[in-house]
Amino acid sequence: MKRINALKQAAFRKDGFNGLLISNPSNLTYFTGFSGASALLIPDDGECVAYVYGVNYAHAKAELTETRVELVERGENLMNKIAEQAKEFKIGKLAADALNIEGWRGLARALGDEKMLAVDPGFVRELRKVKDAEEIKLMRKAAKLTSEGMRVARETVAAGVREFEVAAEIEYAMRKQGCSGTAFDTIVASGVSSAFPHGGCSDRQIREGDLVVVDVGAMYGFYRSDMTRTFVAGKPSEKQKKIYQVVKAAQKKAFEAVKPNVKAAAVDATARKVIAEAGYGDYFVHNLGHGVGLDIHEPPTLSPNSKDVLVAGNAVTVEPGIYLVGYGGVRIEDTVLVQKNGAEKLTNGLYTISEK
Amino acid sequence: MKRINALKQAAFRKDGFNGLLISNPSNLTYFTGFSGASALLIPDDGECVAYVYGVNYAHAKAELTETRVELVERGENLMNKIAEQAKEFKIGKLAADALNIEGWRGLARALGDEKMLAVDPGFVRELRKVKDAEEIKLMRKAAKLTSEGMRVARETVAAGVREFEVAAEIEYAMRKQGCSGTAFDTIVASGVSSAFPHGGCSDRQIREGDLVVVDVGAMYGFYRSDMTRTFVAGKPSEKQKKIYQVVKAAQKKAFEAVKPNVKAAAVDATARKVIAEAGYGDYFVHNLGHGVGLDIHEPPTLSPNSKDVLVAGNAVTVEPGIYLVGYGGVRIEDTVLVQKNGAEKLTNGLYTISEK
Repeated sequence: MKRINALKQAAFRKDGFNGLLISNPSNLTYFTGFSGASALLIPDDGECVAYVYGVNYAHAKAELTETRVELVERGENLMNKIAEQAKEFKIGKLAADALNIEGWRGLARALGDEKMLAVDPGFVRELRKVKDAEEIKLMRKAAKLTSEGMRVARETVAAGVREFEVAAEIEYAMRKQGCSGTAFDTIVASGVSSAFPHGGCSDRQIREGDLVVVDVGAMYGFYRSDMTRTFVAGKPSEKQKKIYQVVKAAQKKAFEAVKPNVKAAAVDATARKVIAEAGYGDYFVHNLGHGVGLDIHEPPTLSPNSKDVLVAGNAVTVEPGIYLVGYGGVRIEDTVLVQKNGAEKLTNGLYTISEK
Repeated sequence: MKRINALKQAAFRKDGFNGLLISNPSNLTYFTGFSGASALLIPDDGECVAYVYGVNYAHAKAELTETRVELVERGENLMNKIAEQAKEFKIGKLAADALNIEGWRGLARALGDEKMLAVDPGFVRELRKVKDAEEIKLMRKAAKLTSEGMRVARETVAAGVREFEVAAEIEYAMRKQGCSGTAFDTIVASGVSSAFPHGGCSDRQIREGDLVVVDVGAMYGFYRSDMTRTFVAGKPSEKQKKIYQVVKAAQKKAFEAVKPNVKAAAVDATARKVIAEAGYGDYFVHNLGHGVGLDIHEPPTLSPNSKDVLVAGNAVTVEPGIYLVGYGGVRIEDTVLVQKNGAEKLTNGLYTISEK
């Protein structure tokens, strides 16, 4: 309810809206703490209504104590149902966080006036950018499990081991300690495929001297974490060490730049500068980082053209990389929490490729 | 290319379209065999263009041999880029498989005429309903890994074990044998939470006599599988056995009803009748099944109001259940392939709660 009230504060002031419709799955989880609702209607005055299909109805009734739970019967038109309720609430202008074209058309038709409906993902996006105490607690736990998975990755990476076998050990370690799943598909990319930032995880056997990029995240209580380390199977070459040191320095500088009131683009520039000055500017082919939370990619974004300004409570990745196609790649990534006076790494440790 | 040609055959005949825009992620994987493209423009005549951001560009260049790969630069407007290319192709009427409202508005504006653009997910949906030989091979493998995971689940479920620990063992077994991840969040729902069809997977310790619903799927080569079994920790009660036998009979009857030219709604009715006749009609609170493939839920749907008629090559789940709130639930589910003369279970085995 605290989050719903904050949303009302933010949204109802703007453009005369007096009703909100939430249907993005992560936003529904954010406001209800439950992942089985299909929509949530928030009036300016009155009890919120969660719309739930039969498959999740009993569960919703048990979990949702602060909203009315409305069963969507088989064959019933959800948009018509929402429009009827909106009229009952005397909602004259409804803002939706997300609708596909079909949903938008259906709801606009049911409301009777297209002008009564606006889609604006920004309302919720702005709220979710700043994590509250409960979210931070869950993200800390997810990050701790992720760091534990990475420790196991480091122990497992060796010549002869297949990429998916490394993933198996990582995920098993995280699961055994209580994570609720992976935050995204685990990447274990060895040899030349380490030069592809999203190199996947195949049945390739790791070879002696390979660079191995491991990108992994645990999920806990719906919250996600994201961490990358790059290892070498065996003894790293001088070139591998060189690239690694550049990425490590870029990550360190960028992390030190993370604090409130700093432009996200400036943090990106800090890392980009270190890499460019070392002569690898063309090989850092992605943004420095992204927000993390209920989604693995969410605002704010650390990129050259980001408009975001960091504030305490943002959770972002800091993940510079250098990718030499045909040779291999290096990426180092942590999930970082912006604090009042700087930043804190939620994932941490294992900043070397050269020792076991 | 075979799939793209089939799409052209299907789509270009209809309503005078002479260009197609694919942007749904699973559809992109379906047509390109690659998961890193952001859009695919298919002209009636000429080479297809895949749009790829920097992070995946080198990877796309290495993987996509049959389409032109176009880099989307940072800050570049993808919809404008697509509209320019559409004009170059002399596309007068463009069908898109999926666009959010922002994307639709942006592209309509860039094309200069709203009437040039139609969103119709049906084109690709119809194609993907019927799996080709390569897809079936991958689904067989995914299903085999899933059945193996379930075998481990059965060995692991016991009083004192936590739900997430069961999930850990299942996922580890599937991963070690080469699956590329889970097809969806594993469900291990014990005791009263087994009465919630999507009961989740918590840190609850399984107790003696609990019903335990285990719903799990492996992913392999982007294809998914889906299987549920219900176990009892210890010796099942008479009531548990009774409910189990009803669900088992419903699943058997429904499976036997799966064949080409049968209405999906009729298959659903077959299972629903068995459950209703046993007096549990009100407690089968969801559809009998759904299509499976690149997505875990896709057409065709086995439900009372489904319009689908089954054809060879459909891959669907058959998953009746009985859910007694406050007591517990039973579900039995297999992924089933419709064959020319009947159907084949891709997942299989373990049809009893009563023995280890």
